[in-house]
Amino acid sequence: MKSISIIGGTGPEGRGLGLRFALAGHPVILGSRDASRASEAAELLLTGDPQLEITGLGNIEAAQMADWVVLSVPYDGLKVTAQNLSPVLKGKIVISVIAPLVFEKGIAHGLGVPEGSAAELTALMLPDSKVVSAFHNLSAHDLLDPNHEMTGDVVVCSEFEDAKHQVSDLINSIPSLRSIDGGSLANSRYVENLTALLININRRYGARTSIQFLGI
Amino acid sequence: MKSISIIGGTGPEGRGLGLRFALAGHPVILGSRDASRASEAAELLLTGDPQLEITGLGNIEAAQMADWVVLSVPYDGLKVTAQNLSPVLKGKIVISVIAPLVFEKGIAHGLGVPEGSAAELTALMLPDSKVVSAFHNLSAHDLLDPNHEMTGDVVVCSEFEDAKHQVSDLINSIPSLRSIDGGSLANSRYVENLTALLININRRYGARTSIQFLGI
Repeated sequence: MKSISIIGGTGPEGRGLGLRFALAGHPVILGSRDASRASEAAELLLTGDPQLEITGLGNIEAAQMADWVVLSVPYDGLKVTAQNLSPVLKGKIVISVIAPLVFEKGIAHGLGVPEGSAAELTALMLPDSKVVSAFHNLSAHDLLDPNHEMTGDVVVCSEFEDAKHQVSDLINSIPSLRSIDGGSLANSRYVENLTALLININRRYGARTSIQFLGI
Repeated sequence: MKSISIIGGTGPEGRGLGLRFALAGHPVILGSRDASRASEAAELLLTGDPQLEITGLGNIEAAQMADWVVLSVPYDGLKVTAQNLSPVLKGKIVISVIAPLVFEKGIAHGLGVPEGSAAELTALMLPDSKVVSAFHNLSAHDLLDPNHEMTGDVVVCSEFEDAKHQVSDLINSIPSLRSIDGGSLANSRYVENLTALLININRRYGARTSIQFLGI
């Protein structure tokens, strides 16, 4: 089983993904700028299921230790984080789950990213890593509830077919989730922006929606 | 039953929607810059089912005659079309189904629209109409096949709640389609761009996909 680190792993999305990866049998490391916060977050997840393999470390150590690295930092911090981690991410699969959003009066808006998407920016910053975009359209709240069966599709985009296949296998190992091949990283912008639409629909319906592609 | 005109109604999307609206019991007028082309397109649809109420007219007459007007012209022609039709569209529900796309080597890309979306541009051009955005993510090919049951969700955005409700009723009158309240017109950009993602996924899978929101 590949080990997976989650940079910015103490936020709800990062913890939620970490929990699901650990439940699927992967050793998981939550990374944070503050290693002790990362440890606390890991311990909190372990109280629910002490059998899981979840630890906490500083971001750099977390990125060093794992086979695969998930970037789950706020879009604002992406450039600096990628710059700092660039040497230790060489050759690794790096999964961007970042949706660049702003909120105005409770309404989510997709930010215009000059590079097209957070994932494309990540790829520019990490030319020696295999960048994959995935996991944008899942509710952090649902991810964090181990009794909630996740449903829906996860679109995976990358220029690296082998990395895309491996991340697809990871997605399909989480019960009831299905990976959808979203083609190249240029398509990530639509998936990232879809997050804004889902959040706004959720707000209107008082729901937590996910997305499914019919016909495949 | 409200009568519905479809401006740019001779293209596959326009004809497909016209067919479905007619099957749901609405009198439908296909509009074209060339009235005779519109008549031909209408007659072709009627060969499948002569009971349907479908006619063809020039765009201006079509817009004048109907209760509701669908804009199904290429994005390039939207501004001029809206300008020309503006006087006859006053007070009417105008449904934009336009997804501003470009294709490069078979890959669809969402165009950056300065106004945010084709629907928001339409609303700017038609301040006296009730602009609604809908029907972006359905396959024209499937719409045109009356034996194909449409499945999936249609996101409806508008600043006019009453118009949104009426268009939602129209959507829900088409078997197996469901309307989703997508909030204000500012959310239309995500729905329009989703078309690019769907087209690219379709190409990769050799499929015709639609979208469904789980959890509502």
